[in-house]
Amino acid sequence: MDLMEKIVNLSKRRGFILPGSEIYGGLANSWDYGPLGAELKKNIKDEWWRRFVRRRSDVLGLDSSIIMNPKVWEASGHVAGFSDPLSECKICRHRFRSDALKDPKVCPDCEGKLSSPRQFNLMFKTFIGPAEETANAAYLRPETAQGMFVDFKGILDTYRKRLPFGIAQIGKAFRNEITPGNFIFRTREFEQMEIEYFVRPEEWKEHFEMWLKEMKKWLKDLGVKDKNREFREIPEKDRAHYSKYTVDVEYKYPFGQGELYGLAYRGDFDLRAHAKASGQDLGYTDPENPKDKFLPHVIEPTWGVDRSVLVAMLEAYHEEKVQGARSKAEGGEDEARVVMKFPNWLAPVKVAVLPLSKKPNLSKVAIKIFKDLSEKFVCEYDETQSIGKRYRRQDEIGTPYCVTVDFDSLKDKAATVRDRDTMKQKRVKIAKLVDYLEKLLA
Amino acid sequence: MDLMEKIVNLSKRRGFILPGSEIYGGLANSWDYGPLGAELKKNIKDEWWRRFVRRRSDVLGLDSSIIMNPKVWEASGHVAGFSDPLSECKICRHRFRSDALKDPKVCPDCEGKLSSPRQFNLMFKTFIGPAEETANAAYLRPETAQGMFVDFKGILDTYRKRLPFGIAQIGKAFRNEITPGNFIFRTREFEQMEIEYFVRPEEWKEHFEMWLKEMKKWLKDLGVKDKNREFREIPEKDRAHYSKYTVDVEYKYPFGQGELYGLAYRGDFDLRAHAKASGQDLGYTDPENPKDKFLPHVIEPTWGVDRSVLVAMLEAYHEEKVQGARSKAEGGEDEARVVMKFPNWLAPVKVAVLPLSKKPNLSKVAIKIFKDLSEKFVCEYDETQSIGKRYRRQDEIGTPYCVTVDFDSLKDKAATVRDRDTMKQKRVKIAKLVDYLEKLLA
Repeated sequence: MDLMEKIVNLSKRRGFILPGSEIYGGLANSWDYGPLGAELKKNIKDEWWRRFVRRRSDVLGLDSSIIMNPKVWEASGHVAGFSDPLSECKICRHRFRSDALKDPKVCPDCEGKLSSPRQFNLMFKTFIGPAEETANAAYLRPETAQGMFVDFKGILDTYRKRLPFGIAQIGKAFRNEITPGNFIFRTREFEQMEIEYFVRPEEWKEHFEMWLKEMKKWLKDLGVKDKNREFREIPEKDRAHYSKYTVDVEYKYPFGQGELYGLAYRGDFDLRAHAKASGQDLGYTDPENPKDKFLPHVIEPTWGVDRSVLVAMLEAYHEEKVQGARSKAEGGEDEARVVMKFPNWLAPVKVAVLPLSKKPNLSKVAIKIFKDLSEKFVCEYDETQSIGKRYRRQDEIGTPYCVTVDFDSLKDKAATVRDRDTMKQKRVKIAKLVDYLEKLLA
Repeated sequence: MDLMEKIVNLSKRRGFILPGSEIYGGLANSWDYGPLGAELKKNIKDEWWRRFVRRRSDVLGLDSSIIMNPKVWEASGHVAGFSDPLSECKICRHRFRSDALKDPKVCPDCEGKLSSPRQFNLMFKTFIGPAEETANAAYLRPETAQGMFVDFKGILDTYRKRLPFGIAQIGKAFRNEITPGNFIFRTREFEQMEIEYFVRPEEWKEHFEMWLKEMKKWLKDLGVKDKNREFREIPEKDRAHYSKYTVDVEYKYPFGQGELYGLAYRGDFDLRAHAKASGQDLGYTDPENPKDKFLPHVIEPTWGVDRSVLVAMLEAYHEEKVQGARSKAEGGEDEARVVMKFPNWLAPVKVAVLPLSKKPNLSKVAIKIFKDLSEKFVCEYDETQSIGKRYRRQDEIGTPYCVTVDFDSLKDKAATVRDRDTMKQKRVKIAKLVDYLEKLLA
């Protein structure tokens, strides 16, 4: 079984990620985040927001609508240019991405003759109001970025920020991909974390470098090893229509190297396009020098939320032989284990509380500990099966610390704290547990 | 100007909430959350998740797809029954909600003859894949709830939870309302926080009561005064098709009393419908008694995120005459103010750092304070205009504390902490500021 398959299985088995609409046979590569996956994803989004919005005085947050005025997508170039070439079989009517066909003239399903390629727009279309007329057509946004451009003027008028400053957003985007696949790598519904960082045109390079550094630091904090990622400059012919310079952050997925994040220099493409289409003045005026008026240029760092989850899981996954473990009869641990070595901040559950038995006097102590710890961290309480099996369960979901309550606890008012990675155990006074774990998890 | 208008103006002026796609003339009552609104909304969602998911061992989180298999909406009853009656004008072709017409036969726009009412489905439709054929039609979810029902089996199989337990989700939902309006009260795109709480049929009443209590506590913590809300039992004829008993939490909005939250007893309507439509066994088996097998019943507390934001703003809004203020010449405050008295946990900005002047020796101290405080709270740094005006600006966005750095600060190593509501000032040593504010904001 390759690593990807192991992650998909673990995800389903432990409730990280489940097939969407599964009881109805699913829906073309859609996925739902179960209890652990929802926590993992939230940890990623919260840390990103904390780091890039709340802690930075030069970045403002935004939460704009998924359905925008369709004129936005005309101005942005998406209506005309956001498409893939498709060929249709003249016999079975199936359609295929022309650029992915082995033989561009023959249907891979029925060997019928294929039409020549036609452009197929990737935006999901819908209709606002009670009539399916063209006038009411609207699109689900294919990227969050346009929200920042369209609201640029409103935010600038309110905040009177000086350049450089950014507008940041986390949210869903939708692309009607012909060939979604590879688990949560490419799905039609996905989530993005994006910043549009507005700069003076002549200063773009230094800010591009600054964001490159931030992305490197982010990758490190997510647990991505340097050898598994590559920063690749995209040649002009492969760049998106709006970009003057792009660096893709690629990751060595089990199915091959592919995109993870992106950093693009968009110039003034978007503000210029929206100024023209809307007839509004989207220029920036230096508050100290009213003659210094221009369209800001834009650096755009983009993070995929779902790909962040995928990469965090791939990096965290370890299979280990446990050396020198005490035998199970002695209350020791199993000899092989799967362990998700998430960085502490990412782990969906921070602490598991495990009473050695279900005896009421132990439960009472353990539940009290669970309640106290739950005030501070996401905790799990597990009292079923052997302690070795329970450790394995927590290892498999990446819980950094287990607190075991045994019969000695009733006498010495202490519990055993077990470290996920080293499996070392330490006796800690129950009264000090919160402080002790707070330091470890800080 | 009525309160609603004041809130809309304040929202736009200070960047809480902006009209969606504004530079393109907007889009039929769509709204974007600007920097302060995005924080306010995130504070609400984060507290809900902390309180009802992370801190409760009987509720599991979920983050399911917006686009689900269309069979979900057939089984749930939404394809057949989620509709409003519409009448179309035979002359101008405009359409109207039949039940809101003064004269059901005459067009209010052109006085043409209206058709008899026809049912119009409120779900947004789209098409998956490269062909707009009926087979590929899909819907944007009109509620998050069905995600919990469809994933119930997957989560139950994984977690082996005992009843009662709940599945909770926060996310976008979409309804193609004929008449959206009243700011963010009714929009076509909105966000929900929902819990499906699965119980033994005979125990539904006690759990219903428990959630009623939780909702009361939530309202209180959001700042809602008892006199402004009403718990109203919905008579059978007005209840949704799935509900056996419903209590609506209504709020006295400036435009009239209307729905805020809801608490519904859905019986086994949804699990039964999905079991039948999917052919899957969605029953629950008591782990201690394999013969005790049944479809759980469901209590569903639902919170609107956007309405929570609206109500929090309405409750927080105050206009005050400032009594006994020192004159402005003495560095005192203005005589009238608008102040948003958010509870501390809700305030988008917790602390503002205000150096009395832009002199470098003051800035240096103030920036250091700002950086230290920003490690812990969302802070703002403001150095423009008079201190009185800056206090007013912070009052208007509801910042609980302002820290003013003056020339004495250079000598006594202290700063002035000003309380938003009492406007009282207290001198605090700079070295103790973080601790001091942490206690106040806890």
